[in-house]
Parts: sequence; C-alpha cells; structure tokens
Amino acid sequence: MSSTPSSPSDSTGSLAGLTSAQLDALAATAAADVAALQREICSALEAIDGSAKFQFDRWQRPGGGGGVSGVLSGGAVFEKAGVNISEVHGQFAPEFAATMPGDGLTFYATGVSLVLHPRNPYVPTTHANFRFLRRGSAAWFGGGADLTPYYPFLEDAQHFHRVLKEACDAHDPSFYPRFKAWCDEYFFLKHRGETRGIGGLFFDYLKDDLPSTHRFWKQCGAAFLPAYLPIVQKRKDTAYSERQRNFQLYRRGRYVEFNLLYDRGTVFGLKTDGRVESILMSLPPLAAWEYNYKPEPGSEEAGLYDFLRPRDYLTATPPPDTAAAATIGTQSQS
Amino acid sequence: MSSTPSSPSDSTGSLAGLTSAQLDALAATAAADVAALQREICSALEAIDGSAKFQFDRWQRPGGGGGVSGVLSGGAVFEKAGVNISEVHGQFAPEFAATMPGDGLTFYATGVSLVLHPRNPYVPTTHANFRFLRRGSAAWFGGGADLTPYYPFLEDAQHFHRVLKEACDAHDPSFYPRFKAWCDEYFFLKHRGETRGIGGLFFDYLKDDLPSTHRFWKQCGAAFLPAYLPIVQKRKDTAYSERQRNFQLYRRGRYVEFNLLYDRGTVFGLKTDGRVESILMSLPPLAAWEYNYKPEPGSEEAGLYDFLRPRDYLTATPPPDTAAAATIGTQSQS
Repeated sequence: MSSTPSSPSDSTGSLAGLTSAQLDALAATAAADVAALQREICSALEAIDGSAKFQFDRWQRPGGGGGVSGVLSGGAVFEKAGVNISEVHGQFAPEFAATMPGDGLTFYATGVSLVLHPRNPYVPTTHANFRFLRRGSAAWFGGGADLTPYYPFLEDAQHFHRVLKEACDAHDPSFYPRFKAWCDEYFFLKHRGETRGIGGLFFDYLKDDLPSTHRFWKQCGAAFLPAYLPIVQKRKDTAYSERQRNFQLYRRGRYVEFNLLYDRGTVFGLKTDGRVESILMSLPPLAAWEYNYKPEPGSEEAGLYDFLRPRDYLTATPPPDTAAAATIGTQSQS
Repeated sequence: MSSTPSSPSDSTGSLAGLTSAQLDALAATAAADVAALQREICSALEAIDGSAKFQFDRWQRPGGGGGVSGVLSGGAVFEKAGVNISEVHGQFAPEFAATMPGDGLTFYATGVSLVLHPRNPYVPTTHANFRFLRRGSAAWFGGGADLTPYYPFLEDAQHFHRVLKEACDAHDPSFYPRFKAWCDEYFFLKHRGETRGIGGLFFDYLKDDLPSTHRFWKQCGAAFLPAYLPIVQKRKDTAYSERQRNFQLYRRGRYVEFNLLYDRGTVFGLKTDGRVESILMSLPPLAAWEYNYKPEPGSEEAGLYDFLRPRDYLTATPPPDTAAAATIGTQSQS
C-alpha cells in the first residue's frame, strides 16, 4: 500500500474492510444522511420556535467541496441556532495528518454540526456533531451530542442521557459508558476545573465494521431531537427575570472559553483558513464576564456547579446534593 | 556559567552587564515602579469615572510571590477596568523556559497589566503592560500599550501614537518604528485578517544597557495616561444609541477572540494554572457575535475597518479613505 496515494481509491483491495467502491458508496450515503439530518433538525427547530426561520448559505471550499450553513437568529425560542453541513475533500497539511489515522494526505470528510443557543435560561444550550472521514485507506465515523444547562434539572439530564444510552445500547452495551466518559473528558475546561455541561456522548475514529458503525452513527443522529426537544418543550415558557438572564450570559462566557481555548475543530479551522463565519457560528449571540463571580451558596445558580463534573445521571438514586439541586430547579418554575 | 543555576544570584560576575546585587536592586526598583504605576493609573481612572471605585484583591501564587488585582466595575465611564500588578518568582516549566532568553529554570517577574473597557462606544478600549523578567543570568524589560477603537477617529489614533512616539524618541529614534511594527504584528487576528485595533507599542526582551532601558520602560509607563486619558475626556459624553452600542458589543467579540486564541500571556497563564480571574479580567463585561455581519458600506462602522490594518498614523497627510472616515466620525458627535 502506498504511503501517499493521490486519492483513497488508488489503493486496491481491502480498505477498512471494504472495497474502494463500497467505501465510495458509504461516503455518498453518509453525505446524504448528513443533509437529511440538517433538513429534519432545522424543520423541527423552526416548528418549536414558531417565529424565526433558518437562512441557508451555500459556500465553496477553495481546496475542494463546500457546505451549507443554516442559521436561525432572533427566534422566540432560539436566540441563535446554527446547523451546518459540509462535504469537503483535498489534502491535509502534513502536521495535521500526523494526528489522524490512515495514510497519505488525501482526505474526504462529511458532517453535520450544530449549536443551539436558546433564549430562555431554563432551556439548555446544546451541541451535536456527526461526521465521516476517509484518509488514504482508512475511514471512520465520529460524533456525539452534549447538553449545557444553565439551571440544574436532574430530570432533564436524565432524559438526555437516557435517550442517548438507548441509541447506544441497541448496538453495543459498552458504547454508552465508553462514549459518555469520552464526552466528559473532552468537554472539560481545565482552567475552570469544570465540565462544559452535563455531557452526553463523544466518539471518534470508529473504524471497525463500518456498515454496522454507520447504522449506530445514524441512530445517534436520529436520537438528537428526541433527546433535546422534550426539554425545550418543557422549559421554554418558564418565567424568568434579569437574574436568570444574567446568569445565562455569564455561563455563556464559559462556552466561548471552551470553544476558543480547547475545541480542536474550532482552533484547527481558524488556524487553517476555514470559513470563519461557519466555524464561529457556535459562539453565543451575547455573553458576559464578571470578575470573581461566585454564586450565592444554596442558590439555584450554585446548584449548577454540582452538575459540572463527570457523574452518572442514570443511577437509580441521585446523591443528596443532586436531589436538592433538582428540587430547587423544579420549584423555580412558575 | 552553570546552565541550571538554582537561582539567578548563583552566577557570579557580570549578569546582563550588571552585578547580581545591581540586578537585585533593579528588580526591586522595577517592582516599586509597577506598584506606583498601578496607584497612579487607578487614581486617574477613578477621577475621570467620577462614580465607581477600584476594588483591590491581594493574591498569593502557590509557586512563589503574588499580586494585587484592581477592578472597577459598572462605572459611569468604565464598564469594566482591570489594573493588575504581580511580583512572582519560582521555576519555569522546561518547555516554557525553552521559549525564553537566559538559562536555568529559576525566574523572577514583576509587571503591571491593564485592560479598560469603557461604556461609551466612542471611547476606545485600551490595554497596556509593562514587565521586568530575570531568568538565570539574563534580565530584560518588555511592555507596550495599544488602542482598540470602535469608531475611527483619525485624530485620536494620531494623539495616541504621537504621545508614545515622543516617549520612544527621547531614548532612541529607532524605537518607535520598531516597536510600532512589532505591535501591529502581535495584535493581529489571522483568521479575521484584521489588527485588533490601531496598535501602539509592543517590545520584549530588551536586555542591552539595562539602566538606560529601565528609564525608557518607565517613561513608556508614564506615557500611558497622557496617551489615553485625553481621548476618554473628549469622547466620554458623546451621545450614542443602540446602534453604536451593538457595534461595540460585536467588536468586543473580536477582543475575546484575540485574547483566547492568540494572546500568549492569556493562553500560557490558563494552561499553567495561573489565577484565572486575574488573567481573564481582560475579557469584556459583555460581548456579542452575529453571524456574517457586514457593516453597511460607507457607514461609520465600515470606516473602522480601514483602521484595522498596519498603517502610519503620524504621516502629515492621511490617505483619502482615512480623512473620510475621520470626518464621518467627527460629524457623528452631538
């Protein structure tokens, strides 16, 4: 096998267990899945928002391929929602290729990536990403979904994790614990000693039995709306005041910190001339920083911090602090 | 000379052209200069603000030394102003030491660092930093000041640069062009293709003739208030509306992007367990991101973008685009 094939199809015989033609077909299917998921998610978000519509921008990547950025701004439910898809191909920079499986520099990637910033502070922010990559003779799936609440509702965290766990369990009982732990590890702000939110799933480099992995990946994508929308539906009309809005803006600052300091996709994209406006669509419409802010002990806001560490939300009996936080959260609804 | 002295004083004889005792005395003087500059700047900012006062937090660094963070929040003129000083010593991490002059891991550093976020969008944000470092047998001064306006007033940019140039010219006519260019190069957002603002001065590793360099460094510190305050005085009562406020919040997003993606001090501090609240005091109280925002051609906001590239503000005749922008800016005052 050549170490620098000019395209993945140059190699003959078994490629990641599939023939080159089978991999081509899988890539085409994955790209179609990604486009269908964007349509489905955007439609569902417009329906629950009831006010604003997505605007779609089609863009070309100079090195090969392109994408469609979908943005909904100033909605009744979503202050800003971005749902991007892309299908790109070309040559990796050698130093970036060194961090990836496979061989050579030629790559193909397709994926959907979304970040939703709701208006109501009781509705969590969420992020999801589902992608398929080929490099030389290697091909793999990656993705995940995670939830970043501003107020600590145990039942919401449990619902989100339960739906994602069911999608995992249908394929392999080892997936949920493995990808849940990976998510906690990835979405961690070292300088703050906090997870970004309550986690979810994160997986990458899944390259064994690609047809089966493709079904798992697709099912995870399909699980996103059932995992998230019921929480939106339940919290979107909760009354809130300036206090909750200010706390939401303050916590959104953490989202900015994570994305600009740690998120590999963001940093890589910006430093390698990606389309800036699509990459930074993940940033909140408005965010605040306050020097040395500490939530009042015993407050709803303080309760959130108990959620910002890796924990198992699906155990039958929550630890006492969680139960207390969830109760405070529930009482606050009017 | 040992390559890993246990402290800078272990080496005998000439250290950066001074004896060890002379370097100790210089360090003590620099630390006193830094503390005096913090007092002077905070007093002047309180006086022009007329409403809020600085709160000072003294902190200790576990590895050695500490500092005093001064923060003014919610003032009439300054929405957030942070003026920090520190005097720290200890051991550099080897990988960090490799990026520095000198030998061994033992270091000493003292400095003042400030970021001022005014409320009125016609008043520019500013940053300044003045520091003295020792590592093993090496010692050097670094620092600078730069201005980040939201609206393009040529006369303000000229005033700021003129005062800084005068401080430089009193020592060496090569300093201003050299440190002005270094500032343009450092405060550059590669992914946006923009400078952070209109620049100013940036210098580092100045280790020749330390007594003379110390006088230059101190004069630069003393030039900060005369460079900035007259601009605040002139613009702080300019009438503005939601349009200018929104543009200010949007442009503050760029400040966040620079500090979290590129600023070496911020990224290093956060990744090596510095005091997070002091490091991130530089972030604005409130910032906004808007997908694919483009200023209206010919507007005041569009005029700013002509300022966001390296240019010589002190030439006698401004290029036509600058003159137009400055005129628009001036007309907007009520």
